[in-house]
Amino acid sequence: MKIILRDGIDSAAIHHIEQWLVTHGCVVHRLEQDGRQTLCSIAEGLEIDLDQVRALPGVDAVARIPHSFKLASRAFRPADTVIDVGGIAIGGPEIVMMAGPCAVEGEEQVRTVARAVRAAGARVLRGGAFKPRTSPYAFQGLGVTGLRILRAAADESGMAVVSEIMDVSQLEVMLDYVDILQVGARNVQNFTLLQALGQVDRPVLLKRGMSSTMDEWLMAAEYIMSGGNRKVIVCERGIRAFGGSYTRNTLDLSAIPVVKQLSHLPIVIDPSHAVGVRDKVLPLARAAVAAGCDGLLIEVHPRPEEALCDGPQSLRIDDFAALAEQVRRIAEAIGRPIAPPGPAPGPRGPRG
Amino acid sequence: MKIILRDGIDSAAIHHIEQWLVTHGCVVHRLEQDGRQTLCSIAEGLEIDLDQVRALPGVDAVARIPHSFKLASRAFRPADTVIDVGGIAIGGPEIVMMAGPCAVEGEEQVRTVARAVRAAGARVLRGGAFKPRTSPYAFQGLGVTGLRILRAAADESGMAVVSEIMDVSQLEVMLDYVDILQVGARNVQNFTLLQALGQVDRPVLLKRGMSSTMDEWLMAAEYIMSGGNRKVIVCERGIRAFGGSYTRNTLDLSAIPVVKQLSHLPIVIDPSHAVGVRDKVLPLARAAVAAGCDGLLIEVHPRPEEALCDGPQSLRIDDFAALAEQVRRIAEAIGRPIAPPGPAPGPRGPRG
Amino acid sequence: MKIILRDGIDSAAIHHIEQWLVTHGCVVHRLEQDGRQTLCSIAEGLEIDLDQVRALPGVDAVARIPHSFKLASRAFRPADTVIDVGGIAIGGPEIVMMAGPCAVEGEEQVRTVARAVRAAGARVLRGGAFKPRTSPYAFQGLGVTGLRILRAAADESGMAVVSEIMDVSQLEVMLDYVDILQVGARNVQNFTLLQALGQVDRPVLLKRGMSSTMDEWLMAAEYIMSGGNRKVIVCERGIRAFGGSYTRNTLDLSAIPVVKQLSHLPIVIDPSHAVGVRDKVLPLARAAVAAGCDGLLIEVHPRPEEALCDGPQSLRIDDFAALAEQVRRIAEAIGRPIAPPGPAPGPRGPRG
Amino acid sequence: MKIILRDGIDSAAIHHIEQWLVTHGCVVHRLEQDGRQTLCSIAEGLEIDLDQVRALPGVDAVARIPHSFKLASRAFRPADTVIDVGGIAIGGPEIVMMAGPCAVEGEEQVRTVARAVRAAGARVLRGGAFKPRTSPYAFQGLGVTGLRILRAAADESGMAVVSEIMDVSQLEVMLDYVDILQVGARNVQNFTLLQALGQVDRPVLLKRGMSSTMDEWLMAAEYIMSGGNRKVIVCERGIRAFGGSYTRNTLDLSAIPVVKQLSHLPIVIDPSHAVGVRDKVLPLARAAVAAGCDGLLIEVHPRPEEALCDGPQSLRIDDFAALAEQVRRIAEAIGRPIAPPGPAPGPRGPRG
Repeated sequence: MKIILRDGIDSAAIHHIEQWLVTHGCVVHRLEQDGRQTLCSIAEGLEIDLDQVRALPGVDAVARIPHSFKLASRAFRPADTVIDVGGIAIGGPEIVMMAGPCAVEGEEQVRTVARAVRAAGARVLRGGAFKPRTSPYAFQGLGVTGLRILRAAADESGMAVVSEIMDVSQLEVMLDYVDILQVGARNVQNFTLLQALGQVDRPVLLKRGMSSTMDEWLMAAEYIMSGGNRKVIVCERGIRAFGGSYTRNTLDLSAIPVVKQLSHLPIVIDPSHAVGVRDKVLPLARAAVAAGCDGLLIEVHPRPEEALCDGPQSLRIDDFAALAEQVRRIAEAIGRPIAPPGPAPGPRGPRG
Repeated sequence: MKIILRDGIDSAAIHHIEQWLVTHGCVVHRLEQDGRQTLCSIAEGLEIDLDQVRALPGVDAVARIPHSFKLASRAFRPADTVIDVGGIAIGGPEIVMMAGPCAVEGEEQVRTVARAVRAAGARVLRGGAFKPRTSPYAFQGLGVTGLRILRAAADESGMAVVSEIMDVSQLEVMLDYVDILQVGARNVQNFTLLQALGQVDRPVLLKRGMSSTMDEWLMAAEYIMSGGNRKVIVCERGIRAFGGSYTRNTLDLSAIPVVKQLSHLPIVIDPSHAVGVRDKVLPLARAAVAAGCDGLLIEVHPRPEEALCDGPQSLRIDDFAALAEQVRRIAEAIGRPIAPPGPAPGPRGPRG
Repeated sequence: MKIILRDGIDSAAIHHIEQWLVTHGCVVHRLEQDGRQTLCSIAEGLEIDLDQVRALPGVDAVARIPHSFKLASRAFRPADTVIDVGGIAIGGPEIVMMAGPCAVEGEEQVRTVARAVRAAGARVLRGGAFKPRTSPYAFQGLGVTGLRILRAAADESGMAVVSEIMDVSQLEVMLDYVDILQVGARNVQNFTLLQALGQVDRPVLLKRGMSSTMDEWLMAAEYIMSGGNRKVIVCERGIRAFGGSYTRNTLDLSAIPVVKQLSHLPIVIDPSHAVGVRDKVLPLARAAVAAGCDGLLIEVHPRPEEALCDGPQSLRIDDFAALAEQVRRIAEAIGRPIAPPGPAPGPRGPRG
Repeated sequence: MKIILRDGIDSAAIHHIEQWLVTHGCVVHRLEQDGRQTLCSIAEGLEIDLDQVRALPGVDAVARIPHSFKLASRAFRPADTVIDVGGIAIGGPEIVMMAGPCAVEGEEQVRTVARAVRAAGARVLRGGAFKPRTSPYAFQGLGVTGLRILRAAADESGMAVVSEIMDVSQLEVMLDYVDILQVGARNVQNFTLLQALGQVDRPVLLKRGMSSTMDEWLMAAEYIMSGGNRKVIVCERGIRAFGGSYTRNTLDLSAIPVVKQLSHLPIVIDPSHAVGVRDKVLPLARAAVAAGCDGLLIEVHPRPEEALCDGPQSLRIDDFAALAEQVRRIAEAIGRPIAPPGPAPGPRGPRG
């Protein structure tokens, strides 16, 4: 349940309320909202009498949270969550472009892409160092070397870095290099990983699973948030419908208004994985911005035909510049800014 | 296969080529494209030697059509099909708004909606007279009375009419009242109906089935076109994915670039049926326009809470005016016009 | 709601109750169950006070039917519906095998198959005369000639005939030749057709649509039943899941226990269309019988490699004999009979 | 590619062939099949000339493996894989019943269930100690305590143990207690976990993901096998189709003939998770056996209404005895044995 505390309540009184809740079997999270103290009390499977809670000294108002996700719900936190990534605000008015290669293949590749996408207005550099591949015989990524390349290129171009973490064992090294930890669609219910990410203070970009319902997806966010890490960005990347041969997955843009209604978390759209075909990325990126997303995640490769991974869906550098220009016009039409083209003093990396 | 004929070929020579094809088991369709005569020759299951066809006098070029749909394919007709509906061009630069109630319930309801949506820029009035309902006990529509109401309101407001035909037996009366014959998602493979629609000279708006692949959907268009009626508009209205409780269906906006690539037919988006919830219609309408659709089909009701059908997804009149304004801005951003707000001299009805 | 009337109630009293219900906005259906008169009263969207109904003279008990389908629900009719088709009982202890070619192609083909499947224990001959094909250029069936061939072959072998009706316009001629009218998956929500089938006294085999939920499917049955025709057999034939390249559809055998719980109607399984590959039909036919189906619908062709339709999924005659033997053993294991191999005096056709 | 070596080839010659393949970029796996040495050489993305390989001294025959999975494919290993688990052969003629509670809740619960299911013919005891739960607030399992309880109960009743591993960090302790390591549906593409399981010599039961295609699922098996662990059992547990409210997932029994055709690995069916409703487990268990599965995985709880997890789908002890009797009859009908009821000298645990 959500418990709004009286103005000017002192910490002893808050502690007393928390104690009461804990002894009644609840887990309690504290949040300051609009200058007021709020508690989120979670008691799965228990029935707490709301009137008893209301009667506790210092309690102003009490309401049930009507979803199985609690901390992730807008019922608990009405205001949008805005996540600061080295000066870039994700979830605010600006639509943030994130772009880069599917996999880090080498220094020159990443630097070329980083400069180009930064010049077109992207603020976050994406790139896979640990690659989840369907085949054990396919290229599995450059690992730490890849992270180093990514960090250097991002620093040079003044960008933040988002990269995928596949397993808890990679967490420590990822924290050294990466500004946003990406959880891939296949790991959306890797609960051990989600719990570990709840323990760190680093933004997480959580992709929707190929067959995740909204509730399952937001419950995955809740796993991270219930551990203490509130900086979760959700990312729609196409679901598995009955399919067909013309797109890889089905991009579900209704996720944008649905997430905005259910949750306060920022939502980013990845049209590249959703459609899997270069020439369909552009119209769907425009559509995502028009529908109200907070950011785009786009695959760009200097020479897609030579890419070790996901070549067919990667944009060429010129394609990305065209995309950036087009989505900027759409963003303007709905009154939201996108970072202008051209280099800019960027964020410092996690060790900066 | 597609057969491009020599410039200035005379009709005797064309007839000779057609005869050759027919005696070799083909069905032949003729089309003038860019001032040149073209034949589409269809021989399911047969192997015709392309070189033999190329050698026929008057043949300029021959190419296989690489899809099971032929007349509907862009391989056959590279230029966009633009369909004239009483002066409204569907499939051209303008994005055409079609709006109205789910079901015709009475004169006042339809006139109110017609005036309001026309004033906001809609050019086609939608409304169901014959209603396909999941339950035999639910309101089945006003039938011919409904058609009369719809026609009168459209004429008064200077609009065209689109309404659903459920069965061949309704065709004759529909032709008296309706400018565009709508085929519902549940009838997308009602082949008897599709064949009958191939025999008339009236535009058809063909909704995608809840589980239609792109190929099946375009093959349904082919059924109509192979009968002689080339005026087919396809309409995406949400597919059935694994779903969830927050939207009725999953709107597949990738259908827009896919249809545009595979086919020359106009594509319209129906976000109302796709999401089934009022407040999610607006963002998805914007997204559809941004993705490049040729029109929108929107449910509007003066008092949705009293609607006999689909109330929860129907926009209020004010909502529609807001939607029209917002999608107009998106359309401008991609360089496409939408009819301005305010009444205008409209098309005459089918009997006008 | 379901209204059980007092023992020995006279027809005037029943009429009085029915009148009361009608004046309160209900549609009323009458049924004798276990020697007692029962009424099914349907009032979509209305709230009738159950206590008022209970107080009517002659009413013994009243209960709401907790589903949107009423006549099709087991809540209304607890006992299994058993449908007599010329002496063959469908829905009783016996598991009825229905077999034959996908499409009627000629006399010799159908007679050969009919004799062979009859000899192996099949009691109903299937075969398509009107064929719903995805492509307008594919073989569309022999029409009435096909029906004649089917009837003659069935009569010769002492079998009943099931064949697909695609449109109301075919109903009259179908009634002359066919014992069971099949509604295909694509027409499961062709409500005009379903309503017409409600007006005739002939069993209907209603296939599940590719994306029909259980409720939608049983509501389609309700369309037929609410018109007066209670002889509905439902048939699962595979749904469209996210799919893959190894089977055509996904056979949902959970439909058997679900239908048995929700409804009193017989359920038949069509593994041929579900899997679309010959060598997977046999194990799934065994599974269907083990799960409790009331019948099987199997495609058999004397020379599948020459079939004009669905060759890859059609069993050879020998395959069917093997299937019949194997499913007979499964049926024995669960205590249900299947007709023995060998010819038998069969049912007379609809005109017999 | 698959390389069959000459009879009587010596190890030096084999080594020479392997060296040649490695220097040409291949990974090589060795297998003895039917008394002959076979190599499986994998070179993703490379084109090796088969004729060159055929010309190497000691090579008898060479063939491409027509799937992306290699070691898991029947093309590589035509004979069924039979996995020995402490004397129980999985993948042989016997159909092996695995049963137990969803989650280990306490000693008495597990011992009661173990004795009961063993008495009914089950040979493997299932039970979750580490539980993947959609909600972070739901019961997460007893961990190592749960494993100890499970092992003790299994040893007492003479059974093997299968239990789920969620993360690499649990592997060491799992190896101390568990005979078969289960990978859950949500982890089917947790590649880090799969790779770790490839390094141990312990059978793995790999569940199909909710939206895994056959290829993706067998590629997940390939991840384990390519690491050296060939003891993989695949387990179908229901996929996510468009769904409905009457079952939790859609059990795809066509997986049985498809896996049997594509692969040599044993396949087990879990009807409990597939349907999620107790009374539908029994008919689908019968169906699975009839379709040719190698085993069943069934949830049983002494008091389902008190279960901390998955109560609604857990069978009562009596239900399981009835299930065992019924599936035994089906197994007999298709000529396969199931272990008889009654206690038996069981396998020793992993430390035994």
